Amino acid sequence: MTHKSIVTLFAAALLSTNSFSQASQSAIAEDFKPSTLNQPGQEYPQVNSQGYARFRINAPKADSVKVSLGLGGRGGTKLTKGSDGFWTATTEGPMDEGFHYYNVTVDGGKFNDPGAQNFYGSVRWESGIEIPAHDQDFYALKDVPHGHVQQILFPSKSTSTSRRAFVYTPPGYEKDKSKKYPVLYLQHGWGEDETAWSNQGHANLIMDNLIAEGKIKPFIIVMTYGMTNEVKWGRIRDFKIDPFQTVLTGELIPYVDANFRTLANRDNRAMAGLSMGGMETKSITLNKPDVFGYYGLLSGGLYSPDDMKDKAKPKLVFISCGSKEKPDGVKQAVADLKGAGYNAVGYVSENTGHEFQTWRRSLHELAPLLFK
Amino acid sequence: MTHKSIVTLFAAALLSTNSFSQASQSAIAEDFKPSTLNQPGQEYPQVNSQGYARFRINAPKADSVKVSLGLGGRGGTKLTKGSDGFWTATTEGPMDEGFHYYNVTVDGGKFNDPGAQNFYGSVRWESGIEIPAHDQDFYALKDVPHGHVQQILFPSKSTSTSRRAFVYTPPGYEKDKSKKYPVLYLQHGWGEDETAWSNQGHANLIMDNLIAEGKIKPFIIVMTYGMTNEVKWGRIRDFKIDPFQTVLTGELIPYVDANFRTLANRDNRAMAGLSMGGMETKSITLNKPDVFGYYGLLSGGLYSPDDMKDKAKPKLVFISCGSKEKPDGVKQAVADLKGAGYNAVGYVSENTGHEFQTWRRSLHELAPLLFK
Repeated sequence: MTHKSIVTLFAAALLSTNSFSQASQSAIAEDFKPSTLNQPGQEYPQVNSQGYARFRINAPKADSVKVSLGLGGRGGTKLTKGSDGFWTATTEGPMDEGFHYYNVTVDGGKFNDPGAQNFYGSVRWESGIEIPAHDQDFYALKDVPHGHVQQILFPSKSTSTSRRAFVYTPPGYEKDKSKKYPVLYLQHGWGEDETAWSNQGHANLIMDNLIAEGKIKPFIIVMTYGMTNEVKWGRIRDFKIDPFQTVLTGELIPYVDANFRTLANRDNRAMAGLSMGGMETKSITLNKPDVFGYYGLLSGGLYSPDDMKDKAKPKLVFISCGSKEKPDGVKQAVADLKGAGYNAVGYVSENTGHEFQTWRRSLHELAPLLFK
Repeated sequence: MTHKSIVTLFAAALLSTNSFSQASQSAIAEDFKPSTLNQPGQEYPQVNSQGYARFRINAPKADSVKVSLGLGGRGGTKLTKGSDGFWTATTEGPMDEGFHYYNVTVDGGKFNDPGAQNFYGSVRWESGIEIPAHDQDFYALKDVPHGHVQQILFPSKSTSTSRRAFVYTPPGYEKDKSKKYPVLYLQHGWGEDETAWSNQGHANLIMDNLIAEGKIKPFIIVMTYGMTNEVKWGRIRDFKIDPFQTVLTGELIPYVDANFRTLANRDNRAMAGLSMGGMETKSITLNKPDVFGYYGLLSGGLYSPDDMKDKAKPKLVFISCGSKEKPDGVKQAVADLKGAGYNAVGYVSENTGHEFQTWRRSLHELAPLLFK
């Protein structure tokens, strides 16, 4: 697969974002509750048991208010002004399960919903809403031992600054001071940053729960900024991997190996990424096959056997996407890799698109396969 | 000093927030630059070398746009619409140095400035702007070894959930696996949460720089949510300390002592807080004089010798505020405490009010006095 066609794969998925589920449009159940991502004490936005979202925004003197969610490419949901000065609307149909970014246009200016918490995406802090999912238990906050997520500031000579990363250490990391752990380097997508996998993805809770269930071998996750946002979305093919590759493999990995109790070798080091972070993963793993032993692309392109020939064989290649993206491409790529003797695993998230529910599920599938 | 008068002390300071500096209003220097707290790539808001702030907000069809900063209690700064649909204004005068919260009112609805990053204050995520300060070097991100700030989720039986805290560990914490550290428990103010001291306060950078300069003995800082926001501002005297005291001393401290390499005793444990976090600090240190050996109130009330009689003597009492608050009260309280034989230190931050620049400076003054 060419570089261009990889870009096309996830660009097409993103640009056609249609967050509606395919449920039939029956009567709207009046069991709306505040979204779990609301700011403290805020009643709106709300979601109901069918996945509809309802918005309510105070702007008594405005002439028009709309939210960007609810009609896919067709311009979002227009709100209607009530006599109390609040604008309200319910989405035309139920939304896909999971997390969605959105924003609010008030009289032609783009703002956030004051009721919702903000999440970094689209190169801005956007409002976020959570549609309850049938499988949300796997990323729920439970009464189990919790790992820690720490912000580190690591020195970066190549960019002449201290750069930020977040490091998940599993429960018990602080107690057994002799145990060493494998490490997954996990990248966000275009328009996002190093906060995405914890805030939107709940990567730490996914790990805590899998560890509590005894389903995975505990490992460390490192999340840093992929330097992806300096390139405009339409010009992603112009993105050069070298500066980030230098930061990741020349600066961050040595810092992590020096400051955390890691198993510092290829067979205990994985790299995975979502969307444009998958593109980065593909480039860096193929450029540095001695550094990473496990590869994961989450809605972020495909590997072919040709990509990897004459290189050290990875211990695992994991490729996933949502069923509303291009699952046939994922299935074919995995079949080709298996046919060529690679340990390849594919995963398709049902009824989700190019959004975080696909990636939460993908991490949940990938984690048990790592570091076997 | 009675409970009521303590509340009055910092309530008065907050409610009269007047962020103007007392500089004379000379011609406005046209050297405006983006605030350092802007979202990536955003040109506005801007600040100039004199401390004026300039705003620019897109809302082409709006009838009125104003920001809450710039005129203290007098209603903020009204923006004027240009032919390009952008609303602009410059504050009437220079602002106080340091960090300020603000929001934007568009046609009667309260939103945030899409150009600025958000910070949790006033029980909502507010826009933030940074006015360069003459002494900003002490909280600058420098090329020195950096500590880590980690999010922990600790079990809390008393509130039937896992609660969040942030833990600053000093540079080198991970390397010398036998060294143990003292701990400062550091509280935010009303309307804020456990993110405030890192995000707005730069507590981690203040520590990193002091440690690099050899000015302090490295210690751990723990920051958690003081459960202060369930009470309305005007009803703070109804606030009951017991639930938070249970979480802090019965749940968080044992978790920290079990999961971090702490010196787990009174003489190596401090508590300090800003504004309402000072009120919490006063209550808890006096209720639990066996738990904490060092006390700090930052724009958050006063101790009197009467408060502490017949209790284990603290090793240090630190009391501070901004010069625009009630510095005479701080000075008198410190004199009274010294007269009664206590080790008391006062600090007044020049030309600042009930805002984070006062508290950044206060932490910078307090840290070298701790754990001697």
